[in-house]
Amino acid sequence: MPEAPVAHKIRILFLDVDGTLTDGVIGFAGERDFRNFYVRDGLSLEWARDLGVLPIVISGRSSPSVAARMAEHEFEHYLGIKDKVAVADQVRAREQVRWEECAMLGDDLPDLPLLKRVGWPIAVADAAPEIRAFVKTTTQARGGRGAAREVVEMILRHNGVWDRVLERYEAK
Amino acid sequence: MPEAPVAHKIRILFLDVDGTLTDGVIGFAGERDFRNFYVRDGLSLEWARDLGVLPIVISGRSSPSVAARMAEHEFEHYLGIKDKVAVADQVRAREQVRWEECAMLGDDLPDLPLLKRVGWPIAVADAAPEIRAFVKTTTQARGGRGAAREVVEMILRHNGVWDRVLERYEAK
Amino acid sequence: MPEAPVAHKIRILFLDVDGTLTDGVIGFAGERDFRNFYVRDGLSLEWARDLGVLPIVISGRSSPSVAARMAEHEFEHYLGIKDKVAVADQVRAREQVRWEECAMLGDDLPDLPLLKRVGWPIAVADAAPEIRAFVKTTTQARGGRGAAREVVEMILRHNGVWDRVLERYEAK
Amino acid sequence: MPEAPVAHKIRILFLDVDGTLTDGVIGFAGERDFRNFYVRDGLSLEWARDLGVLPIVISGRSSPSVAARMAEHEFEHYLGIKDKVAVADQVRAREQVRWEECAMLGDDLPDLPLLKRVGWPIAVADAAPEIRAFVKTTTQARGGRGAAREVVEMILRHNGVWDRVLERYEAK
Repeated sequence: MPEAPVAHKIRILFLDVDGTLTDGVIGFAGERDFRNFYVRDGLSLEWARDLGVLPIVISGRSSPSVAARMAEHEFEHYLGIKDKVAVADQVRAREQVRWEECAMLGDDLPDLPLLKRVGWPIAVADAAPEIRAFVKTTTQARGGRGAAREVVEMILRHNGVWDRVLERYEAK
Repeated sequence: MPEAPVAHKIRILFLDVDGTLTDGVIGFAGERDFRNFYVRDGLSLEWARDLGVLPIVISGRSSPSVAARMAEHEFEHYLGIKDKVAVADQVRAREQVRWEECAMLGDDLPDLPLLKRVGWPIAVADAAPEIRAFVKTTTQARGGRGAAREVVEMILRHNGVWDRVLERYEAK
Repeated sequence: MPEAPVAHKIRILFLDVDGTLTDGVIGFAGERDFRNFYVRDGLSLEWARDLGVLPIVISGRSSPSVAARMAEHEFEHYLGIKDKVAVADQVRAREQVRWEECAMLGDDLPDLPLLKRVGWPIAVADAAPEIRAFVKTTTQARGGRGAAREVVEMILRHNGVWDRVLERYEAK
Repeated sequence: MPEAPVAHKIRILFLDVDGTLTDGVIGFAGERDFRNFYVRDGLSLEWARDLGVLPIVISGRSSPSVAARMAEHEFEHYLGIKDKVAVADQVRAREQVRWEECAMLGDDLPDLPLLKRVGWPIAVADAAPEIRAFVKTTTQARGGRGAAREVVEMILRHNGVWDRVLERYEAK
């Protein structure tokens, strides 16, 4: 488990979608688009929300399939966003959270501007080389295959509340 | 083939869905959810049922795609279940089977309470570390890619009826 | 390229579907089933048909998605078949072809009875161990990822007509 | 980064679809066909277009799902094409571009005639052996998993404009 590069507790986790919460596949079945999400990523983001780390999902693309997945978990999400930093900054201000208290998980160049703002920038294992070169932490798991789960565990351990997840499932 | 940690024959096999009977992908095509199952897992669970091992599928989530797959095989299934132990206990009592005569195959923390009850708790190869640390048997195959098939063969061998599968297909 | 275990030219190639022409995934999107086929497998089966090797697809299951794929290529196919040997025998008799002139590609126990009849039984790389133990040839490629293509090339080379495929694409 | 086999700048990039912009899976969900594309491939082809390299997509097959993906990016595309060379030649003439100024990315035998015409023929990592044997450059990434992205970066570096991509995302 890598050491967190911040002293403060993390209060917001920004997440990209394609390649981060999915494996990067953008499918089409006829004219209907589809995405591959991962059960453990969604579950862990619910734990984060329950334990004081707000997941905020920001995607550069609009997609009915992404909206459906977000609705299922009732995650706060922003789709079709050109300027991810501006959206993140608004949420951050509303929540009265400083950039040092934010983490961000991404995989590709469009995520870089926001990764540069947050206190804890994190890349999925199969992120673009430019992203892995910049961040301080890279997950073992690939995007859409447990990267978000790994990040949630890192952050909840850093925040000192991971044991509360384990207790919920008789794992402690 | 690992040795079974129980002396009794196994009469019920409880199974999780996402990450166990599927590869963990929860897909959305527009608003329609989808899942990836595996042909050999479903076929082997039919052998189990024919040969005296009742497959009982219990998922924490509700999903039309999971319901459709279960209906195809006419497997007894419970979806959207918060307390898996309570549901399993009811089935067990109805079938007049003791916990020691039950096996369970799972992959993640929500499966742990039920894994702790059964005589033979089993994890898929790519289960969460907390699950692999607890169970006595971990399959070689991943969830949704033959883990259930491997478990059915283990149980039917343990129960002394595997040859009847081979005979059915001229394999013996 | 393995040597063919038969002296005669191959005139019919029997093929299983799930796990052979697909990767074994049986998906459901809502109540609609889906399958993953592979572009190079379908293309190569068209070459086989054009060059005197009739592809006959026989599946134990019925599925609208399999029927759609077969229709796209206009391959002769039989779905929902309990007794694959009986169906294959009828086609064989109609075509006036002896069992020694037939090949079969399969992946799992339900394919074994037919594999035992044909002159050239072949397993996909990720076939069940009982199948790999029986056949004389196992492909390098997995089911639904080029196994059929590999088999078509093997058979057309054996039949002495592979160069005609290469010539068609200026590859010779 | 391999050296380009041409002295001129590349002005057109021809691309195959199945196995090149997708992973080769041709899926069917009921009667509806589907394809797996990759987020980073589509994004990079937009960079190419913005920076003077015209992406032209030519497929031997017709498919509503491919048409939907192409429409999303507004890429010029030709589906159901028997003679890829003829179509490419028309586009080339219209754009007043010589064959030496064209690149082509493909994966299988039907791509070979066009690969033989262009100045810079390129194969995806998992291309058919006949294709890899012919081209001068083979990508590290597989088809539908970043091969097109890798090619776009190679071409834009060769053309001397890759830094403009990096600048757009604060990566330089």
